[in-house]
Amino acid sequence: MERSAPKVKRPIFVKTSGRGFYDITSSVAQVVSGSEVQDGLANVYIAHTSASLIISENADPDVRVDLEAFMSRLVTDGASYYKHTAEGRDDMAAHIRSCLTNVSVGIPVRDRRLALGTWQSVFLWEHRYHAHQRQVFVTVVGSV
Amino acid sequence: MERSAPKVKRPIFVKTSGRGFYDITSSVAQVVSGSEVQDGLANVYIAHTSASLIISENADPDVRVDLEAFMSRLVTDGASYYKHTAEGRDDMAAHIRSCLTNVSVGIPVRDRRLALGTWQSVFLWEHRYHAHQRQVFVTVVGSV
Amino acid sequence: MERSAPKVKRPIFVKTSGRGFYDITSSVAQVVSGSEVQDGLANVYIAHTSASLIISENADPDVRVDLEAFMSRLVTDGASYYKHTAEGRDDMAAHIRSCLTNVSVGIPVRDRRLALGTWQSVFLWEHRYHAHQRQVFVTVVGSV
Repeated sequence: MERSAPKVKRPIFVKTSGRGFYDITSSVAQVVSGSEVQDGLANVYIAHTSASLIISENADPDVRVDLEAFMSRLVTDGASYYKHTAEGRDDMAAHIRSCLTNVSVGIPVRDRRLALGTWQSVFLWEHRYHAHQRQVFVTVVGSV
Repeated sequence: MERSAPKVKRPIFVKTSGRGFYDITSSVAQVVSGSEVQDGLANVYIAHTSASLIISENADPDVRVDLEAFMSRLVTDGASYYKHTAEGRDDMAAHIRSCLTNVSVGIPVRDRRLALGTWQSVFLWEHRYHAHQRQVFVTVVGSV
Repeated sequence: MERSAPKVKRPIFVKTSGRGFYDITSSVAQVVSGSEVQDGLANVYIAHTSASLIISENADPDVRVDLEAFMSRLVTDGASYYKHTAEGRDDMAAHIRSCLTNVSVGIPVRDRRLALGTWQSVFLWEHRYHAHQRQVFVTVVGSV
């Protein structure tokens, strides 16, 4: 996996501009096609605790609108019982949202491509109000 | 991994008959034993956004009854605020349920067998009301 | 991976003393550094259905206090509608908490070290009231 090693080592940097969803599927797919793995597994990992990953529906943008509406009802920003308040109303909520979704997802690789379902995309879900630069590691393992 | 390659490449097809749990442990175990991996990792991946995967208690069926009761209380079918309504009362709820559970799970492989806990099984959780055929990919990586 | 094999095969045993969080990052890191994998993936797997894993904020202990406060509000111990009651008020709640968090997490390995974010640690979340001994499998795959 000589050729793929450098690509695999380096994280993807994703600039976010506030709470919401960012489709990173093409960046992940690029690492996979750049690796020499024919069939195996691609792990996508976000090195943060206030943004997370989901694999979800990519056809109707209203699905993400409803996902955010559900999550903001479930996890109250600045809930009165939070003790961790120093970093803003959204920070503790962001840590909870991260625990309810994913820090890490594995996706099968077949014939050097992500075997995603027809309607599946990989989204980075930014849970903080303000802009951040997020680091996402893609690791491809399997048979060359 | 020559001999295992074809098995690993092909998805498992799971016929569901409405919302509920379908134990796919034996189908996953079959792919693992059919591969040449002695010790490593088996990834189970569902290529859909309205059905998901959990690893949960397999001894008392009431656990699944209570899991469904909890989830249907948490995620309202046809909630008034959903914008994504074209595909039925259960569709947006299904996407949310999928995000709260798993699209992908990794299970350790030891001595060519899944190292599941005594009470653990792998379940496909169908979140739609109607019957579907679901595709599940099993990927086995590790030392032959 | 001769040298790493025995370490990888054997689970980590974690003694818990009631509901709460147990940082297992150093035990996981030890298996990784003991393996011969230079770059790849470390999977952490808990072989139980009433304790789970999260990767979360490790700097302010109040974050875990708030996570537990959120989860205990979301998942009622001994809810009146639970049918699975034989094993105590906390058991069904524990199975639900496990499904909402993780049984399995993948962490990238770079230069023989876990590529965790600055504020990330791996926690075992015990959901039962009483003490248990939990088995956690760490599997390291990738390029030697």
